[in-house]
Amino acid sequence: MLQGKVLVAQGGGPTAVINQSLVGAVLESRKFSGVEHVYGSLHGISGIVNENFLDLTQETTANLELVAGTPCSALGSTRDKPNPKYCREIFKVLKAHEIGTFFYIGGNDSSDALKILSQMAIKDNYDLRCIHIPKTIDNDLPVNDHTPGFPSAARFVASAFAGVNQDNMALQGVYVGVVMGRHAGFLTAAAAGAHTFKDDGPHLIYLPERAFDMKKFVGDVKRVYDRLGRCVIAVSEGIHDKKGTPIITKLSKTVEKDAHGNVQLSGTGALADLLTDAIKVKTGISRVRGDTFGYLQRSFLGCVSDVDQREAREVGEKAAQFANFSDRPSGTVTIHRVGDYQVEYRLSKIEAVAGLTKVMADGFINKDANGVTPKFMDYLTPLLGSDMARVGRLDPANKVKKILNK
Amino acid sequence: MLQGKVLVAQGGGPTAVINQSLVGAVLESRKFSGVEHVYGSLHGISGIVNENFLDLTQETTANLELVAGTPCSALGSTRDKPNPKYCREIFKVLKAHEIGTFFYIGGNDSSDALKILSQMAIKDNYDLRCIHIPKTIDNDLPVNDHTPGFPSAARFVASAFAGVNQDNMALQGVYVGVVMGRHAGFLTAAAAGAHTFKDDGPHLIYLPERAFDMKKFVGDVKRVYDRLGRCVIAVSEGIHDKKGTPIITKLSKTVEKDAHGNVQLSGTGALADLLTDAIKVKTGISRVRGDTFGYLQRSFLGCVSDVDQREAREVGEKAAQFANFSDRPSGTVTIHRVGDYQVEYRLSKIEAVAGLTKVMADGFINKDANGVTPKFMDYLTPLLGSDMARVGRLDPANKVKKILNK
Repeated sequence: MLQGKVLVAQGGGPTAVINQSLVGAVLESRKFSGVEHVYGSLHGISGIVNENFLDLTQETTANLELVAGTPCSALGSTRDKPNPKYCREIFKVLKAHEIGTFFYIGGNDSSDALKILSQMAIKDNYDLRCIHIPKTIDNDLPVNDHTPGFPSAARFVASAFAGVNQDNMALQGVYVGVVMGRHAGFLTAAAAGAHTFKDDGPHLIYLPERAFDMKKFVGDVKRVYDRLGRCVIAVSEGIHDKKGTPIITKLSKTVEKDAHGNVQLSGTGALADLLTDAIKVKTGISRVRGDTFGYLQRSFLGCVSDVDQREAREVGEKAAQFANFSDRPSGTVTIHRVGDYQVEYRLSKIEAVAGLTKVMADGFINKDANGVTPKFMDYLTPLLGSDMARVGRLDPANKVKKILNK
Repeated sequence: MLQGKVLVAQGGGPTAVINQSLVGAVLESRKFSGVEHVYGSLHGISGIVNENFLDLTQETTANLELVAGTPCSALGSTRDKPNPKYCREIFKVLKAHEIGTFFYIGGNDSSDALKILSQMAIKDNYDLRCIHIPKTIDNDLPVNDHTPGFPSAARFVASAFAGVNQDNMALQGVYVGVVMGRHAGFLTAAAAGAHTFKDDGPHLIYLPERAFDMKKFVGDVKRVYDRLGRCVIAVSEGIHDKKGTPIITKLSKTVEKDAHGNVQLSGTGALADLLTDAIKVKTGISRVRGDTFGYLQRSFLGCVSDVDQREAREVGEKAAQFANFSDRPSGTVTIHRVGDYQVEYRLSKIEAVAGLTKVMADGFINKDANGVTPKFMDYLTPLLGSDMARVGRLDPANKVKKILNK
């Protein structure tokens, strides 16, 4: 039974639809008559320790709906990883407020925090039901077919590459776009969603699932450029050499790490600059441009997949329903593809996702390690949403006969 | 009278709506019974020299409409600046194809090319009517209230900052976003379109209209950070010191210039990295992130202002109408604001815009040279379009009473 006080929090990197999950969990929880209050913790688990709670039972539905459509974590987020001492602080506060259900919306690191927390609760004999609600633009949670937040970020990346491909046709040269994604290449691979015509870019896609070799890279670029007179390239920020050393650390003076030991890859244009410099120097091509898509990928206002919006809402709702109807005390809501296109939601064990990382299946990556397969396109396409803008071209067959330069 | 063969071309940097102008000019020209053919030149004036024309009279309306909604120059673009020899090559081709009307869609540099071309035509006694159709995301053409392409790029920048402002609230720190715009700060200033709540970012905006001082910049950032615990900053790629030296050239080893003598500012993340490094080192704030919005600003698929879309279409249509009805042989279509919000179109002299640059009016920039005025917001807001997404916040008043940490 879902009753008493319910707490919800958001952790990790924000997404375009993480507030849909928040509002789904809040509104659904409020429907159960035994639920007295739904609290929101500010800035994830750090808000619990500091007792920074908002009473979301006092929010109007209209305002919650406005928040649901707003990108990024309305409750604020955190990168804190709780150790046993941190967890004891959390318990103290949860007990004092008589909270029996905790919904934590987050990715790998957040689910890992929730696992530690729920294990501590069992050990301390405290009756706490922890439900993890998935989100991550990286799409790297195991068990799930995909994770809320990824489809909208994928739509952003596909829309960006569809645009820069047009730009690159208009003013020809080489273009490198660097995409977020530490270990999993899903978001970079989503650049292939930009393809409409046969010669559309991105023509090359480099993923962290394969070792990156600068010599092969430059050779690939030169081949495409020689054939088409232009080349558009999607590169994951997480590309690394054979030994696993990220290419970006090869030029950064100081490497910044977060509490989870992750090297800071985003928020700098260094990798794009390194790659464009290499292309210029080694091929002699003069017009070489690079962009790093950065934080826009997870936050841009108004670029949302309607499929993602719906599913993010539903995983939040399902968390409340699982908390009420399921026998299992704790778990993670997981998304499973059961049709083309249809999904269902299950309550899985937190241990099956916590701190674990899923990467692109071998069947999604081409043999040359510089593109994706039709199988990946089948996987990606329905996620981008029902209303992706289309691109057109003037008919190249209507050439006017030359008079002077016959 | 508009008759015979009409030629249309696109020059300079692409925009989200430049194809609206192309299709407006083509469809409107096709309505005049005296018009035999409407040709499109591939890659601007370079396509004329090489006789690379498409016959746009053989395009279906449906396909032209699809192209109109596609970002960037469907005919391709060029940065070529014609000298007298280049112009004589152009004349030779125009004469051979019996072209009497030339519509050139472009910005400062393109209108400058058109000016040279129309002067050469008069000198050579060749009957050529040249009409310049304005476009530029920089919004820096004189005479015009604003230029097609700017409103959609402004919407992109405002949407991006609305998103990263949410991101920065969720995971606090300092964020620097670098925006396109060499001499004119309009596009950077459009970041202010992201404001909804009083403490929304961008909190600081730096424009090329004012000299940039690193010490003052760092001081500004620190003050905002101390007050809000976070700071979002919009910076123009064109910021420069008192002497006019672009800040970006202070760290680039080699400076790339185009045919018009412009220093290459885009396509590198170096400026954002320089600024975030300076903030980190001089304030000690640890979480400092920077993005360079790059080519997405002018090409992103699906981010368009409906006002911009309509006006871009109309300046194309007006070009054909002016060519048919006006006495003046050549000119530039200009946009004038005549209501709140309403515009009208006039045919102005090419000399009034060609190669000239308009910058932000003093009344648009605040006294501290780090933000915009309400007057600028009145100017900007109607341009962003009728359907900008809204953002919401949870009500901070619904705080739960602390039990332990009273």
